[in-house]
Amino acid sequence: MHHRAMNTQPLYLRLADHYRRAIQTGVLAPAQRMPSVRNLVRAHHVSLSTALQACRQLEDDGLIEARPRSGYFVLRPRRPALAPVPEPDIKGALDPAQYVGIHDRVSDFIASCQQHPLSADFALAAAPPQAYPMRALQLALTRAARHTPELLTAPVPPYGHPEFRAVLARRAMECGISATPDEVLVTHGCIEALNLALRAVARPGDTIAVESPTYFGLLQILESLGLRALEIPTSPQRGISIEALELALQTHANVRAVVVVPNFQNPLSCVMDDSDKARLVTLCERTGIALIEDDTYGALGDHGTPLALKSWDDSGNVIYCASLHKTLAPGMRLGWMLGRRWSRRIGMLKFAQSRPNPPLPQAAAADYMGTKAYDRHLARLRQTLRVQREAMAAAVARHFPDDTRLSVPTGGMLLWVELPAGMPAMRVFEQALRAGIRITPGPMFSNSNRYDHFLRISCGVPYTADIAAAMQRLADIVAAGL
Amino acid sequence: MHHRAMNTQPLYLRLADHYRRAIQTGVLAPAQRMPSVRNLVRAHHVSLSTALQACRQLEDDGLIEARPRSGYFVLRPRRPALAPVPEPDIKGALDPAQYVGIHDRVSDFIASCQQHPLSADFALAAAPPQAYPMRALQLALTRAARHTPELLTAPVPPYGHPEFRAVLARRAMECGISATPDEVLVTHGCIEALNLALRAVARPGDTIAVESPTYFGLLQILESLGLRALEIPTSPQRGISIEALELALQTHANVRAVVVVPNFQNPLSCVMDDSDKARLVTLCERTGIALIEDDTYGALGDHGTPLALKSWDDSGNVIYCASLHKTLAPGMRLGWMLGRRWSRRIGMLKFAQSRPNPPLPQAAAADYMGTKAYDRHLARLRQTLRVQREAMAAAVARHFPDDTRLSVPTGGMLLWVELPAGMPAMRVFEQALRAGIRITPGPMFSNSNRYDHFLRISCGVPYTADIAAAMQRLADIVAAGL
Repeated sequence: MHHRAMNTQPLYLRLADHYRRAIQTGVLAPAQRMPSVRNLVRAHHVSLSTALQACRQLEDDGLIEARPRSGYFVLRPRRPALAPVPEPDIKGALDPAQYVGIHDRVSDFIASCQQHPLSADFALAAAPPQAYPMRALQLALTRAARHTPELLTAPVPPYGHPEFRAVLARRAMECGISATPDEVLVTHGCIEALNLALRAVARPGDTIAVESPTYFGLLQILESLGLRALEIPTSPQRGISIEALELALQTHANVRAVVVVPNFQNPLSCVMDDSDKARLVTLCERTGIALIEDDTYGALGDHGTPLALKSWDDSGNVIYCASLHKTLAPGMRLGWMLGRRWSRRIGMLKFAQSRPNPPLPQAAAADYMGTKAYDRHLARLRQTLRVQREAMAAAVARHFPDDTRLSVPTGGMLLWVELPAGMPAMRVFEQALRAGIRITPGPMFSNSNRYDHFLRISCGVPYTADIAAAMQRLADIVAAGL
Repeated sequence: MHHRAMNTQPLYLRLADHYRRAIQTGVLAPAQRMPSVRNLVRAHHVSLSTALQACRQLEDDGLIEARPRSGYFVLRPRRPALAPVPEPDIKGALDPAQYVGIHDRVSDFIASCQQHPLSADFALAAAPPQAYPMRALQLALTRAARHTPELLTAPVPPYGHPEFRAVLARRAMECGISATPDEVLVTHGCIEALNLALRAVARPGDTIAVESPTYFGLLQILESLGLRALEIPTSPQRGISIEALELALQTHANVRAVVVVPNFQNPLSCVMDDSDKARLVTLCERTGIALIEDDTYGALGDHGTPLALKSWDDSGNVIYCASLHKTLAPGMRLGWMLGRRWSRRIGMLKFAQSRPNPPLPQAAAADYMGTKAYDRHLARLRQTLRVQREAMAAAVARHFPDDTRLSVPTGGMLLWVELPAGMPAMRVFEQALRAGIRITPGPMFSNSNRYDHFLRISCGVPYTADIAAAMQRLADIVAAGL
């Protein structure tokens, strides 16, 4: 386990996560013995107290139990567990393809969704509105309007509101990033940041390596910019395969950038190991390929914020893109980025594309994010998402057919579910819609047919009796189709 | 004079403008007799009362005087008048060129500006902050935050906030446009609207016809999208030359669109005649070239809002782009567009580029713009700009060398000044900067060297004693260089 002093997540939690993953993937089976505390100390170069804390965390999480004089043992899961989604074939990278249909696919998806009354929305990747600090933001906005109304009528400041840029730079330390406020560029969501990053490093016809599966929003951007996408096999447990990427870069010229969501990836919700993050940064630097990081979900980890790829970047080869859309306020559309090596070009593109963002909402966000209230909100939001995610995962395990596969993530709000063979996701999608249930079918996340029996299920909604019934209904639809 | 029933500007004002232009351009010289009221009735198919009202307006404006039993006569101007900027050579269209230096030119311009302390800003194309309804917007925003705080934390509605779209559609009637709220797409300023329009109709390498001179922001967009620009000669009095455009379209294939600012063009502040507007719409429709209209300044006419090109568009070939940046609130960055024939593609591009705009500021703007207070604000703003513009024009006439040329516009906030031969605008720009005075040099508005002895002078600042002194100083810099 690679260890970096600047990671703000306590070491014992990271150690616990390491073993949690081993237990969830079956590397450590029920009734097996955990390594002894003494062995943990030796193997991971941690203190005795850290090793003990990690074990107690796993015990609290119901994964292991202490037996007197014998040490810790792995517990049988309290609910039937599903096998994790299997690892991808890392030799299976696609040929780079120009996306020409994803816009239409997304439009069809949205149009279909709108044709049916909605009873349960498992498609929207957002926490429920009440999980966001609506009153506090309302007050912050009112305060900003009262104290600095001239922000409404004066010309907009370049790159963003100074206090907001300062808060973002300070908050970025939590994922290991050192940046000055001057380096921060405020954008219209992470989506605009990704557009600017891609436009800065690539031209139409160029190839961009992406995770497979990946967020359809990214595929739409690539299509709209006339870029080709090279899908790199990505593990539901560990994220993008560095081996597959290396292989792809040897095979394909003209790859200008890699876009990676290292933390709680969409749709997989996987988190890359620190060692893989370091390797990826080095590989891109060595091969002269820009590394574009989308860290939209990073702050939503059960045990805090994992490190950003950017924290390993010494040369300025990583363009960091982030958003407050999932963490602070879906309705404010605030994003930001660090362009580093490309910051001059990115600044010009931002100016030419949409001019600087309006400052008043930034002032309000800065006001709120500068206080401890934001930390308390994040802690609550993580807890909310964890509870909802585990309830949804349990419902999948309980109701879906036995050979359904699911890797339960340690953060974020998305579940990636592999259906039994022979049950096409598009059919489930359409039948679920008719029952008022929205899910996102696997084909939205790739230009290939690799994910035609996968579903993305969002855990953004509180797990009520209605939602439980909807999950049962969804499982019935899956089972009936077999 | 072409007349359209849906024009909201009273007919007598338009008739007065017609003769105002004739007087200002010397077609009717001082001491010459105006056509008799009876002749006005006959020539323009207007009522006797309309003709009389037009004459009284010109009399109120100090342009003509009534002599008993003899009719109206043109007055000698109360201040020394400058000759208008001459008409362009309409055969002089440039070859389409890929812009590769405008970003750098703009960056250098901004960087130069920031190196010197500022005493008078004649570069910024905005009215002073106090000319915008800061308090009313502050209240509207606070009200929106109180009544609909969920807009901060719920997912954003597609295309824009419903009430804002409805108000924009209603307000668009003022420039002759019939549109339903459903057709309105809210954007991040007019800049984003222009980006989306161009991306919808053209691909990198294509050619776009533009006015010459034109706003450097448009040239930056073209450069950033890899588009070529074909500069069409544009009259400081009547706007883009339809003859020159027709000629250019015959000569150059691959022209995908024409971008035109028909009302108070930047930098010329000219307004196209209604007959030219109609011809332009027909020409583009006939030749299958998209017509992209930028109507940022339309509402800032001394006598109301001139018709939009869009009001002549029956086939959906005109993409209308507009902004509230100059008229309502520079700090809110609200823009919008009507994509018509391309609306599906534009909607997809907007979604891929920046997602829908955040709704709360739109709700606040809708609240304010739905009331008569907005009309009263616009009337005051027009009056403010008119006073400032005439004071600035008088200062140019009084202090600048005799062979300076200037066409005084009837709306907007910009003066386009031709310096005497031998006085390069870049030298004036640099020397003025050292004196703390910012102007925009002509070379910013073209990829050619046609405007190297032109200046754009913004009338956005109230005409105080300091500003008067700065104008005197600017004139000294010009004179000293000769």
